[in-house]
Amino acid sequence: MSIAATADTSPVELDTIVAAAVAAAPALRRSSGALRAGWLRAIADALDSQKEPLVALGEEETFIPAARLRGEVARTTGQLRMFAGVAEEASYLEATLDSPRPENVPPVPDLRRLLAPLGPVAVYSASNFPFAFSVAGGDTASALAVGCPVIVKAHPGHPRLSAAVAALVADALETAGAPAGAFALVAGFEAGAALVAHPGIRAAAFTGSLRGGRALLDLAAARPDPIPFYGEFGSLNPVLVTPGADAARAGDLAQGLADSFQLGLGQLCTKPGLVFVPAGGAFERELASLVAGAPGRLLTDAIADGFRASVGALDEHPGVRRVAGATAQPSDGAAPVVYATDVATLIADDDLLEERFGPTTLLVAYDELADAVAAAERLGGSLTATLHAEAAELDPALVDRLGALAGRVLFAGWPTGVAVTWGQTHGGPWPATNSLFTSVGATAVRRFLRPVTYQSAPQEALPAELRDGNPLGIPRRVDGRPE
Amino acid sequence: MSIAATADTSPVELDTIVAAAVAAAPALRRSSGALRAGWLRAIADALDSQKEPLVALGEEETFIPAARLRGEVARTTGQLRMFAGVAEEASYLEATLDSPRPENVPPVPDLRRLLAPLGPVAVYSASNFPFAFSVAGGDTASALAVGCPVIVKAHPGHPRLSAAVAALVADALETAGAPAGAFALVAGFEAGAALVAHPGIRAAAFTGSLRGGRALLDLAAARPDPIPFYGEFGSLNPVLVTPGADAARAGDLAQGLADSFQLGLGQLCTKPGLVFVPAGGAFERELASLVAGAPGRLLTDAIADGFRASVGALDEHPGVRRVAGATAQPSDGAAPVVYATDVATLIADDDLLEERFGPTTLLVAYDELADAVAAAERLGGSLTATLHAEAAELDPALVDRLGALAGRVLFAGWPTGVAVTWGQTHGGPWPATNSLFTSVGATAVRRFLRPVTYQSAPQEALPAELRDGNPLGIPRRVDGRPE
Repeated sequence: MSIAATADTSPVELDTIVAAAVAAAPALRRSSGALRAGWLRAIADALDSQKEPLVALGEEETFIPAARLRGEVARTTGQLRMFAGVAEEASYLEATLDSPRPENVPPVPDLRRLLAPLGPVAVYSASNFPFAFSVAGGDTASALAVGCPVIVKAHPGHPRLSAAVAALVADALETAGAPAGAFALVAGFEAGAALVAHPGIRAAAFTGSLRGGRALLDLAAARPDPIPFYGEFGSLNPVLVTPGADAARAGDLAQGLADSFQLGLGQLCTKPGLVFVPAGGAFERELASLVAGAPGRLLTDAIADGFRASVGALDEHPGVRRVAGATAQPSDGAAPVVYATDVATLIADDDLLEERFGPTTLLVAYDELADAVAAAERLGGSLTATLHAEAAELDPALVDRLGALAGRVLFAGWPTGVAVTWGQTHGGPWPATNSLFTSVGATAVRRFLRPVTYQSAPQEALPAELRDGNPLGIPRRVDGRPE
Repeated sequence: MSIAATADTSPVELDTIVAAAVAAAPALRRSSGALRAGWLRAIADALDSQKEPLVALGEEETFIPAARLRGEVARTTGQLRMFAGVAEEASYLEATLDSPRPENVPPVPDLRRLLAPLGPVAVYSASNFPFAFSVAGGDTASALAVGCPVIVKAHPGHPRLSAAVAALVADALETAGAPAGAFALVAGFEAGAALVAHPGIRAAAFTGSLRGGRALLDLAAARPDPIPFYGEFGSLNPVLVTPGADAARAGDLAQGLADSFQLGLGQLCTKPGLVFVPAGGAFERELASLVAGAPGRLLTDAIADGFRASVGALDEHPGVRRVAGATAQPSDGAAPVVYATDVATLIADDDLLEERFGPTTLLVAYDELADAVAAAERLGGSLTATLHAEAAELDPALVDRLGALAGRVLFAGWPTGVAVTWGQTHGGPWPATNSLFTSVGATAVRRFLRPVTYQSAPQEALPAELRDGNPLGIPRRVDGRPE
């Protein structure tokens, strides 16, 4: 298999790599779910076997502590094995059979439908999860699971780890018998832009900044043949603490926020970035003593520069106060710090509504809960929205409004930590994502599929999943009902 | 409800109409499937009750014969009632519950997911199905079914029919108790462009030409917050007649093609536009006597002009022969005519690969079946691909290649006639559509939905569909398996 090293991929190399993916696509399309499950498990086993050297490389390149990276490898291999199960279980195919009804006007022929893979997928990996949202992460796993070749654009924040994981993935796939061209890695800004515009690419998935993601999205949309582009761009993840919750458990809530916004030094897409608290309540006071402000290194110099700039702007903002954490930022990293403002200031200044990637969060004092909700609705979409309320305060209309703002609505706990399950949604309205799908969890595969219906097909022409008698025993809908 | 008449909608009127849809969105989002099913059936009943005056209006504006329009009204009301059933059945919600697993690393909280409506949807109606793909057609029905307000852009080919149907839909919805703002009609080129760019619109569906559709798609993609745009743009619908099928039943096949390409005077998006036949076979000879060439009026003057221009280009093309039907076109309409060429000529001239909307089709003689398949792969995507083959000629690789070209692959019959069922796919790769979904059949609703997950929610905060004990008795997945 063709694996680029850490050097930038040239246009000629890119053409060769995409051509190999295009050539591999029919074999992947015809492969069985059981076969692809074996490929994914082989990748997971390979990652597990090389965990320690990979973690060491990741620590060196990203400054993420080894313990967290070990957890991330486990998350990544768990994710690969979950998608193996999704491929085998096969409900994702949405196999649907309609019996002929010649008496209808117009007559209904024999129709049998399944979801088929789109073809080669470009995956743009993220800086902040060098395993789980990177070379062998969820996008790669979900695309391979349903039979799409994958070409990963390496994140420049961890080039050697990307190359190492890619080599391991390619070897595992080759040993497991996957077609050459099923997987490759490319590197470099220009190769990344050329990839999404390449005629051989049929879809793209991206996790990163709004600026970079929007540029790629625009390239995808401007193609002679536009392709789906699934972007995750950033999120403020508002939290709403009601007066009742503040009165009943401000201390516990403040501890929860302190843990959540500092996790991964605040470099998680689900970091709670805006926390609405009742004016004059206990929350701010409780939080003050819980943020030590110990500094650390951020993922890249660019992220550290961006963090210091956004914190600096808050320091100088006349309507914003520092209320906890570091009084000054180190020159080579970041120190956790919490700011506070009020609803009126927030909604008067769009700059306060931008994501601040790193260990900071902004408390927003409100007089009336309704003002806080209205302010949250001005933020645009988020991956998550969190409501900490007492039972008597739960208003169906409020819950409905929060559901319109985010892909996940929490009623306890904090948004960091995204379980990889069937029911997860990691997505949300613009600018959190531009997608109607989740990028985490079992249904992430739907991004890389399109329906195909076979009409009046002889048995031998049908995919096995659609034949009479359900020879593969998969979940199917027949004449509108589960088989 | 606000219903524009046939006059162009002004910018101020458009703002008012979209604001009403935005205001209605929360009530629609919270409405039950059973309630919305009632709305759709009320619309269907109203259409049935006014069938004859509507058909008369349609005949006057579109020149489509009354008999076909009556059938189309029945298709449209059947479609509305099918989507009512989809809303009630509720499997479209993909309701999914994950039990908490605190022992996992990281722990899995209680997660409950469903698909929620996007909000106001713009529907651009088509010229060629003034009922089924127009004001009360499949896009409108599928969006309303899942709780999205709808604003239809009327097609200028049938303005009075559009206004009449819109008034009837609005009355039916109001009487059935739907929120004001759930439905409206707008008219005019500029209002159509402004609609897809309007901040209140969350998705758009379009059926029409590639040129007009691409312009709207580009507007949707260039928004500050890009929205999903589901376009159906045109399709060549290749047919492949194998040597065995030609030898066994050329007469029957030729009759089938003659009926199919002339249906609706060739103004159907599934018209077979390119038919690959073995060189020296019987097909062309059989077809010659089956195309009488009787003229008729096309939908609009623009379509008639376009048809005469494309037929004229074939008449003058040195590599194309007229083999059946009219020798000349009438000045005020169109007469069915069949042309023939060969694979080498086809692939040398991109102009021959463009859709010719109207009563014509192009036979393409091939020497080797493989050449015909390779030529079909140069067409780009189609809504349908049809294979007429004898059993011994069915090659899995060939079937797979046809599946990559289209959303529906037929092994008998002809692509015109699209049954409205669970297993239908009316979609296909670019330029047929830009969509991963069908626009006909039960799963068309997925275009207007996005996932929302509730984490650790108290029972009273959950939608009824996700509560313990499944109080609504809907299909759900619990811990990865059907409940």
